Amino acid sequence: MIIVMERTATRQQIDAIVSRIQALGLAAHLSEGEERTIIGVVGSPLPPTLDSEFEIHAGVQQVVRITKKYKLTGWDFHPHKTTIAVRDVVIGGDQITVMAGPCSVESEEQTVSTARAAKAAGAHILRGGAYKPRTSPYEFRGLGRRGLEILATAREETGMPIITEVMTPSDIDEVGEFTDIFQIGARNSQNYLLLEEVGKAGKPVMLKRGLSMLMEEWLLAAEYVMAQGNPDVILCERGIRTFESATRNTLDVSAVPVIRGMSHLPIIVDPSHAAGKRALVPALALAGIAAGADGLMIETHPSPDHALSDGAQSLTFAQFAELMPRVAAVAAAVGRSFSAAETSAVV
Amino acid sequence: MIIVMERTATRQQIDAIVSRIQALGLAAHLSEGEERTIIGVVGSPLPPTLDSEFEIHAGVQQVVRITKKYKLTGWDFHPHKTTIAVRDVVIGGDQITVMAGPCSVESEEQTVSTARAAKAAGAHILRGGAYKPRTSPYEFRGLGRRGLEILATAREETGMPIITEVMTPSDIDEVGEFTDIFQIGARNSQNYLLLEEVGKAGKPVMLKRGLSMLMEEWLLAAEYVMAQGNPDVILCERGIRTFESATRNTLDVSAVPVIRGMSHLPIIVDPSHAAGKRALVPALALAGIAAGADGLMIETHPSPDHALSDGAQSLTFAQFAELMPRVAAVAAAVGRSFSAAETSAVV
Amino acid sequence: MIIVMERTATRQQIDAIVSRIQALGLAAHLSEGEERTIIGVVGSPLPPTLDSEFEIHAGVQQVVRITKKYKLTGWDFHPHKTTIAVRDVVIGGDQITVMAGPCSVESEEQTVSTARAAKAAGAHILRGGAYKPRTSPYEFRGLGRRGLEILATAREETGMPIITEVMTPSDIDEVGEFTDIFQIGARNSQNYLLLEEVGKAGKPVMLKRGLSMLMEEWLLAAEYVMAQGNPDVILCERGIRTFESATRNTLDVSAVPVIRGMSHLPIIVDPSHAAGKRALVPALALAGIAAGADGLMIETHPSPDHALSDGAQSLTFAQFAELMPRVAAVAAAVGRSFSAAETSAVV
Amino acid sequence: MIIVMERTATRQQIDAIVSRIQALGLAAHLSEGEERTIIGVVGSPLPPTLDSEFEIHAGVQQVVRITKKYKLTGWDFHPHKTTIAVRDVVIGGDQITVMAGPCSVESEEQTVSTARAAKAAGAHILRGGAYKPRTSPYEFRGLGRRGLEILATAREETGMPIITEVMTPSDIDEVGEFTDIFQIGARNSQNYLLLEEVGKAGKPVMLKRGLSMLMEEWLLAAEYVMAQGNPDVILCERGIRTFESATRNTLDVSAVPVIRGMSHLPIIVDPSHAAGKRALVPALALAGIAAGADGLMIETHPSPDHALSDGAQSLTFAQFAELMPRVAAVAAAVGRSFSAAETSAVV
Repeated sequence: MIIVMERTATRQQIDAIVSRIQALGLAAHLSEGEERTIIGVVGSPLPPTLDSEFEIHAGVQQVVRITKKYKLTGWDFHPHKTTIAVRDVVIGGDQITVMAGPCSVESEEQTVSTARAAKAAGAHILRGGAYKPRTSPYEFRGLGRRGLEILATAREETGMPIITEVMTPSDIDEVGEFTDIFQIGARNSQNYLLLEEVGKAGKPVMLKRGLSMLMEEWLLAAEYVMAQGNPDVILCERGIRTFESATRNTLDVSAVPVIRGMSHLPIIVDPSHAAGKRALVPALALAGIAAGADGLMIETHPSPDHALSDGAQSLTFAQFAELMPRVAAVAAAVGRSFSAAETSAVV
Repeated sequence: MIIVMERTATRQQIDAIVSRIQALGLAAHLSEGEERTIIGVVGSPLPPTLDSEFEIHAGVQQVVRITKKYKLTGWDFHPHKTTIAVRDVVIGGDQITVMAGPCSVESEEQTVSTARAAKAAGAHILRGGAYKPRTSPYEFRGLGRRGLEILATAREETGMPIITEVMTPSDIDEVGEFTDIFQIGARNSQNYLLLEEVGKAGKPVMLKRGLSMLMEEWLLAAEYVMAQGNPDVILCERGIRTFESATRNTLDVSAVPVIRGMSHLPIIVDPSHAAGKRALVPALALAGIAAGADGLMIETHPSPDHALSDGAQSLTFAQFAELMPRVAAVAAAVGRSFSAAETSAVV
Repeated sequence: MIIVMERTATRQQIDAIVSRIQALGLAAHLSEGEERTIIGVVGSPLPPTLDSEFEIHAGVQQVVRITKKYKLTGWDFHPHKTTIAVRDVVIGGDQITVMAGPCSVESEEQTVSTARAAKAAGAHILRGGAYKPRTSPYEFRGLGRRGLEILATAREETGMPIITEVMTPSDIDEVGEFTDIFQIGARNSQNYLLLEEVGKAGKPVMLKRGLSMLMEEWLLAAEYVMAQGNPDVILCERGIRTFESATRNTLDVSAVPVIRGMSHLPIIVDPSHAAGKRALVPALALAGIAAGADGLMIETHPSPDHALSDGAQSLTFAQFAELMPRVAAVAAAVGRSFSAAETSAVV
Repeated sequence: MIIVMERTATRQQIDAIVSRIQALGLAAHLSEGEERTIIGVVGSPLPPTLDSEFEIHAGVQQVVRITKKYKLTGWDFHPHKTTIAVRDVVIGGDQITVMAGPCSVESEEQTVSTARAAKAAGAHILRGGAYKPRTSPYEFRGLGRRGLEILATAREETGMPIITEVMTPSDIDEVGEFTDIFQIGARNSQNYLLLEEVGKAGKPVMLKRGLSMLMEEWLLAAEYVMAQGNPDVILCERGIRTFESATRNTLDVSAVPVIRGMSHLPIIVDPSHAAGKRALVPALALAGIAAGADGLMIETHPSPDHALSDGAQSLTFAQFAELMPRVAAVAAAVGRSFSAAETSAVV
């Protein structure tokens, strides 16, 4: 950390800061220039809020934190890109991974038919919500355990691994009985106790970006999971909240290359929640892949107009099937491959 | 709900929508103009996502939801402003309520001395965090149960009711043993299971606005608490996330009159978290009161530079004591009163 | 326009609105339901601010504008996609158009060498600023007329049409002497007098999206140009301002399909200004093409580290040349083609 | 400027940066620590974009600019708060200044009656638009020169100085014939040529904050005016664009104390454009004054429902008259005074 003093800072102000640094068991290195003094703070661990403390000290102009707050998620201590194997699907490798399925699990027929259609079109992992966070308490909130059982049935029928959301620590055991990947939703992206508990559950975790989450905060949230010994975290960009209301959220496609520069974790794009409207989903899916995403999460439903949630943004089976070859073409154009999971033979 | 059809909509498209409305057990009223057809949807309950479903139907130009999604929090079914009594403090009445205290409970001495100083200056309720949500897993996360015990001691010493944050459903019983008001933090503002569980706990709940929460979403979150039979919800504006980085968050002072127009619930302003910097806190506190807020939540600490969290935005005792008469003056100027709690005699 | 009255609206309130509508020479159609009255407003032209006027009338719950505010830019009155021919380059057709060049024209050597390198790599149009808007008055502001002359020289040398920014009405004649396309920058996107004057200048206009411009506002700005009889407007998405600071701006890649749905005008993507950092430019360029953009505007410079402006986001010639085949591959993957302009033989 | 190198930076990378610094005629001071090297850049003038250039150099982790980009607007070179005398009104002193009037000048009767009513209620300066920037080309755009003449008449009748917007350089002479203060609107806040030209016109300039303008950018825009030798700049906070749509814009009331900390220029608050709705105006006006603003700009109209622009946010005369004593009370509560201009005797 570097503390830049005002030109008008007094000797007393400088000494006060040096004392405080030493009281914390850290060392202070002074660089006294003609115009101003600059204080380097050396030692560790540096209290995470030390910068904001010093920022308002008398005589201080600016404080610069040099060390990154995130560690486990960064390249510094993990120089190889993370790949995550889920049954026979690998996430984060050369191949693009497509997760598809309904927003909510509504019935066995709906879910199994969606899984079959998604798999036939090339999807690798089945998504579906059994426990649903809803903005209003009066909306459909999922089938709960019955939904998890249906997902398991669909997995048996198709061989596709499943991903489903867990909303609260006390549901982790139950959801963990069934799911292959835990999903943490955008609204829970800073629910730190949930992140820690799911980090202990021994299965991969996909962490959606919160609606107003900075990249660094996102990695720090992932750090909560990884700090429990779980290296298998997938990041999912699903749109941020901005002034623009033409889309449900604004897909921050730049997150893909920015996160790639900061972290070894795989990142996938969810065009459905970003767009909020079916017609926009293909363009955003292709943009995500072109930007370098490791995969996609897309909502599809046998009859979107009758879906109990998010129907407006769900693709029909035909639309989904039409999109997959276009995804494959763009993937190829950017040096990635796309093919149905190896288990496809099983079906 | 009103469905406005495109000028070019076909009879078949109109009929499809009418059928869908009827299939949901609702009635469709057609108004066929020269230019276009408009369909009114009548009946209840209207599925909460019906508007987004119809919005993407072929032939539809626009869907307008007329009924509000929130009910219990709105004026329609509760035409009187809510007042909430917590021991002998009343929130939401003519008097301004001031909640003050440290960000984190760090020790008995720190907390009791803060409570005494805050009370002497005119504060009514003691705030202090025992369980702290932190962006990074490497930051100080509160004293837990010991923190709650310290808060209770401070209450005994000063007679001030206490408010403290609860972060997860499984902590509600423990926190409820001690606290007078449950605080739900901004990061948990859409943690719906937590909202429901805290709604069952039989004590007032203060719900902070999420960093990117629309007013309507905020009321719907409050609705989760109220739907459990708990009418005692306080809203707390604490800044939203915008492009401006000169402040930690952007205090949306307009939320005060806007919420007043939408809801009967009391609303207070937290200038400390909005500003992120001590020097800005007084101006924002006064602005909040001038805009009509029912109270303030302000961080104060015996030695902010040594605070374990949020020191940069905490006032010293002297700064807090200097601010209170200014708050009283502005309160008087807008027709509100401000005085220390009746229990002040106890101290 | 539809005016939805409150359930509690009085007859007098309804009559007052009807009178006001009639006073404006419009007709009011009442639909009196069991629950509430809805008033349709028919006639034209509808004053553009009529909705906000009625919104705050006593007894009114909601006002819904049905007709779109933009006309010339929308599909309704122009059902075919616009293509714009600039010398022998066509913008908005099947082929992707690439505009490339330095942020600022600095010297003849710099500009001509950039034009040659860009053209050799496949670019069609040369960009370069002669008049530069700068956030600070102390920054380099362009070579002015000399810069325009240099651009013209580069056009002669390479056959590439040129695009350059015009910042104020009194410069239009001078800039128009040289440029093939006028560029209106993001900061001037709502400088309506400039838009009108440039609309009269008889050359195509590329309109960058303002940093906080809604899609509808963007089209209305384009409408200012088109209302002067100039049909040749190109839209350019270059990033919006959001809370995220990891990138200079947030590329709103969704603007591509959203604008496509609203307007017949070509839309291109500027990844350089969105990213602000060279390393992110390729990913964003590819994302824009995958999303369906009609082209790209990319900054490239012989020695970006020595550029007088925007060096950080400029590609080297080698980086630009390496990106072009990747753009071509993604363009092909989404059914577009990409090839150097026909004039390439001239060089 | 300080350049923090990566821990892994090579000697060659460090040397390259030092060479580049020296080539710019600046000096490089190396501080080589155990962990990393830090390079201080000394000399002036520092190219304004040097930080972004170095930020992407190989081996660089972070670049920190120490000197502020704004000079004339900052406290460093102007340690006394600016006060601006306009006829016998002083802006920026102890007294609160109220500017009031219609959005647009519509007729002599409307404007003069508004001026009389505003003055009678305590306003000091008359506002009114003769040239109006409008989002759509189909909206009312002001009376032009006739509007300026009407404003002058109203000034004669009431003795109130006037403020009106100028939109383009070629209008400055004409507007300057009439107005006492030039207003630069939010959409033109980064129209740098306009800022420079108006800076030469020898009259005070009020600069509205752009919808997505950072504080620093706002001061740099003011710097354009001041760099022409005009010290009389007033800043006006009028709401920024955020995700929240319950208000037309989000009043950033924190701008008042933040700007106060950065600049000696007076700052006033425009609650009308921030709110967009009449009912919210009083609360925001009072909040602005409580936060320390030097004044207010408020829209009022003899018959807001018939206004040609911004009627929804204009107060009636009665509402305006009712608000003024409340403003006076809050002003007094924060140590400011409020009284009608001394010229009031003239009327």
